[in-house]
Amino acid sequence: MAIFYTPDILQNPYLPEEESAHCVRVLRLGDGADIELIDGKGHFFRARIVQAHPKHCQVEILETTEDHSAPCFAHIAVAPTKNPDRIEWFVEKATEVGIGGFAFIHSRYSERKNLKLERMDKIVVAAMKQSMKAIKPVLQDLTDFRKLVVQPFEGQKYICHCNPGKKPLLNNVCRPGTPVLVLIGPEGDFSPEEVTLAMDNGFKPVSLGDTRLRTETAAFVVAHIVQLKNMQE
Amino acid sequence: MAIFYTPDILQNPYLPEEESAHCVRVLRLGDGADIELIDGKGHFFRARIVQAHPKHCQVEILETTEDHSAPCFAHIAVAPTKNPDRIEWFVEKATEVGIGGFAFIHSRYSERKNLKLERMDKIVVAAMKQSMKAIKPVLQDLTDFRKLVVQPFEGQKYICHCNPGKKPLLNNVCRPGTPVLVLIGPEGDFSPEEVTLAMDNGFKPVSLGDTRLRTETAAFVVAHIVQLKNMQE
Repeated sequence: MAIFYTPDILQNPYLPEEESAHCVRVLRLGDGADIELIDGKGHFFRARIVQAHPKHCQVEILETTEDHSAPCFAHIAVAPTKNPDRIEWFVEKATEVGIGGFAFIHSRYSERKNLKLERMDKIVVAAMKQSMKAIKPVLQDLTDFRKLVVQPFEGQKYICHCNPGKKPLLNNVCRPGTPVLVLIGPEGDFSPEEVTLAMDNGFKPVSLGDTRLRTETAAFVVAHIVQLKNMQE
Repeated sequence: MAIFYTPDILQNPYLPEEESAHCVRVLRLGDGADIELIDGKGHFFRARIVQAHPKHCQVEILETTEDHSAPCFAHIAVAPTKNPDRIEWFVEKATEVGIGGFAFIHSRYSERKNLKLERMDKIVVAAMKQSMKAIKPVLQDLTDFRKLVVQPFEGQKYICHCNPGKKPLLNNVCRPGTPVLVLIGPEGDFSPEEVTLAMDNGFKPVSLGDTRLRTETAAFVVAHIVQLKNMQE
């Protein structure tokens, strides 16, 4: 069944303009058709089209279900990659496996100093629909590294960098049950000063193993490790 | 330093034609320049260019190092996705995190019945260079599902499918230290008959959690779980 993203549906029984167009113009659904909705705040809805307007499609909610899947504890802060496809891929895949939030960082050796947050938002919503998730991960726009590391965060804090030194495996030290914020270095890695600043603010250096991973692969692998730690049968 | 893939370098001290062109024409490296080589069979080499020929670049090996990283136990059999980018992405990422082999399957509900194996091979080699891996994963061309499940395989065998029934989490049942072959269903999933045939041939059904993953995401997540199980500090 077709699924639509309707963040305000509990206040306002209309699909947003873009979703209305997709529903009525593209999928040609008409009055009386049953559809599914997610609000990004933890609710699934079964709904029926009352008036199939291509800009303001009105619906009636038939049934509300809460998302009972385990909470997503991973929060990943990563620099946008030189090739935007790569970071977009990470955003799609991490949303699919489950993530609590994305933050984008501007650090000293970042290859890219800008980010299309709206595009990231669309990728997140598409991946939520694909993987049937009713809770939307938080998206934080490009933030200076020095500001990001001093933001309050209740939970475990780690930093992935390639500078020398012995680091424990994230998979061995990450604990289930609490949020985890992980900083992922850009293609040019974090500077030694940035690593020191992060450590001074409670971030512990961790390793992802002895393989050299691309920025977006490291970011995804971290999100997956945190999900695995919190997965129950 | 520039790195080149030279599968026959121990027998033949020349870069292959394509690598010669890249080395001499694109990177404009000349006689006496130092380069790195991998042979895909477990060796890294430091080498020097003896004759910078754009088709048959001759080199002298200065130093040979063996790849001492942990063996990659994951073998993933997956149907090519409708959109080839998606399966290519999986091949790149799995090579980066480490994988023993890829097999491509043609199953009843496969969306795509063909595969450009040569293109997959190039993606594997590029990802090996990127992530500094000297052992090349095995690539098995498109094989009928019924043939693949009866192939001999020494190790653990699992199947991921979305048909109903309680399945343990792969992350809970997968054991370290032995090869693992995992069958990943196509976008249209395996048919019930295919699942039965696999189980009759020793494949145990497993789950990846309660999220709905795309084919290529499931394949990658499985490769990563097997790597994590075998990772040591």
